[in-house]
Amino acid sequence: MTQDKPYAIGIDLGGTKIIAAIVDQNGCILSQANAPTQKEDEADAVILRIGDLVQSVLADSGVGLAQIRGIGIATAGIIDTHRHMVIFASNLNWSDVAIGDRLHERFGVPVQLINDANAAAVAEWAFGSASGTDDLIYVTVSTGVGAGIISGGRLITGIGDSAGEFGHISLDPEGPLCACGNRGCLENYVSGLALAKMAQEQLQSGTASSLRTCTTGELSRITAKEIGEQAQSGDALSIDLLRQAGYYLGVGLTNLIHLFNPQVIVFGGGVMNNGQILLEEAQRVIRQRCISRMASQATIQLSTMGAEAGVLGAAGMYFPAARKKVAV
Amino acid sequence: MTQDKPYAIGIDLGGTKIIAAIVDQNGCILSQANAPTQKEDEADAVILRIGDLVQSVLADSGVGLAQIRGIGIATAGIIDTHRHMVIFASNLNWSDVAIGDRLHERFGVPVQLINDANAAAVAEWAFGSASGTDDLIYVTVSTGVGAGIISGGRLITGIGDSAGEFGHISLDPEGPLCACGNRGCLENYVSGLALAKMAQEQLQSGTASSLRTCTTGELSRITAKEIGEQAQSGDALSIDLLRQAGYYLGVGLTNLIHLFNPQVIVFGGGVMNNGQILLEEAQRVIRQRCISRMASQATIQLSTMGAEAGVLGAAGMYFPAARKKVAV
Repeated sequence: MTQDKPYAIGIDLGGTKIIAAIVDQNGCILSQANAPTQKEDEADAVILRIGDLVQSVLADSGVGLAQIRGIGIATAGIIDTHRHMVIFASNLNWSDVAIGDRLHERFGVPVQLINDANAAAVAEWAFGSASGTDDLIYVTVSTGVGAGIISGGRLITGIGDSAGEFGHISLDPEGPLCACGNRGCLENYVSGLALAKMAQEQLQSGTASSLRTCTTGELSRITAKEIGEQAQSGDALSIDLLRQAGYYLGVGLTNLIHLFNPQVIVFGGGVMNNGQILLEEAQRVIRQRCISRMASQATIQLSTMGAEAGVLGAAGMYFPAARKKVAV
Repeated sequence: MTQDKPYAIGIDLGGTKIIAAIVDQNGCILSQANAPTQKEDEADAVILRIGDLVQSVLADSGVGLAQIRGIGIATAGIIDTHRHMVIFASNLNWSDVAIGDRLHERFGVPVQLINDANAAAVAEWAFGSASGTDDLIYVTVSTGVGAGIISGGRLITGIGDSAGEFGHISLDPEGPLCACGNRGCLENYVSGLALAKMAQEQLQSGTASSLRTCTTGELSRITAKEIGEQAQSGDALSIDLLRQAGYYLGVGLTNLIHLFNPQVIVFGGGVMNNGQILLEEAQRVIRQRCISRMASQATIQLSTMGAEAGVLGAAGMYFPAARKKVAV
């Protein structure tokens, strides 16, 4: 039966943009389309828009619904994969939205939800450079820090679909209070927001840096992107900030390796676009501190997936190799 | 076929003692026997002794080999579950011992190895008070600290059977150097060894405590057992030490909850025999610091298993509910 249904539809539902794509078992995209989310609309209107994108990629590719195994939706926030609902998503202003039921009613195919870091992990595992392993951790360093974890060929979701909160493990019990309620969370040392904040503090205290000129003195315009660029141009402050973040990232990764004993760790997220210094420092810490047998079993690499990781991971849940493993 | 084979044999291979037991699918022990390990002997002699214990429990129970699904062996150290070998076990002075092959040659039934913290986790999950969940973490606080993790109905082993090194996650990147090479490992704040060391330091610096009298001044005799007992009698130093350890345990558990989103955390190990203060403080930290949705999904309880946890977990790998889930 699955041979009659060679395709799946992946949806990447973001706060700004929705992407839909038809994907085959090799991770090839037959057709894709996108639309602005317009999150100020009611959830029902956004779901209608998602449905229209699905119609559009179907029409565009000439694939019929009968050939579709299911629709996967990658989204941020708290989801309930059993009830196919978004419980809470601050980037969409959604609470308790039964998006799975709505799309199932319209198209009559199975619908599954997946957290976006988990979708990226499934994409790497099903179609990416890490497809040879069943023990993989995808780490995203972006505005925040998150992880999607596949262990023994299964996506780790936990009892409430909330596993993988790598950004909120404490590296210092007496450290700064995090928005999550914990103290000294990794996200406060490593994320794009943390880097920008630390740069601003240093510049306010008078540290010399080309970050000042490149943002024409408007310190609030500094993001991890500028820090990465200035570091590549040799700016000492930017290099220091990335090294410090890399140090904490290495400490956090050592904890992950000791808990999961992974074979591959894949990095993605905006901060990693200029992530060489960060990654080198993290790897130095791992070599120094990690139990050597476990460190030597773990390969660390940058994601080679582009903006399609979300749709590929969402669709990837439906392909035999991936589906067999993702389904509990 | 499995109905014709209602039993499994569990072996708990320790540095001092070997226990063997015949176990049924309900976790009932039909027969058990033990013998000193005599680890000064060659590995082959120890394996012969294990085999003799197996013969003995078979004879004692009247169960024939034809009714045995397999032999499970719980042991400390680094194991290779694919090749059924002990790679390195300091408590036995073993390196690269093919115990699985030896016992399979003698008895002709499947043989599987399992790390002892993982065995305790499987025992709780297959036969214990946590048998209703598929998202369970067993934490042992003993001389050291370890964990066995079951997530989505699968034992988390990692690529090299080394996952679950909870004692070696760093809670302070600038903390004391641990024997594992990492800094600020949880084990340095929470374990029986850490408690004894901190007590000795406090007593040497002159702190008043009934620990001094109960060990007649021989500070090297202090262990977590004495600290637990004196805390129950109201000794302020002992209470303080357990509270401090509980604080760090709570920080570490918050990290575990954020990564695994478990439904149940079960505590075992010698230190937890008097673990009330430790556990209360850990739970206070979790309530304060853990993402509340994930904290509310996690029940924390003490193990109700006794000294048989090792043999039950080792045998538990062979029963349908457990086997289906443990096998990758």
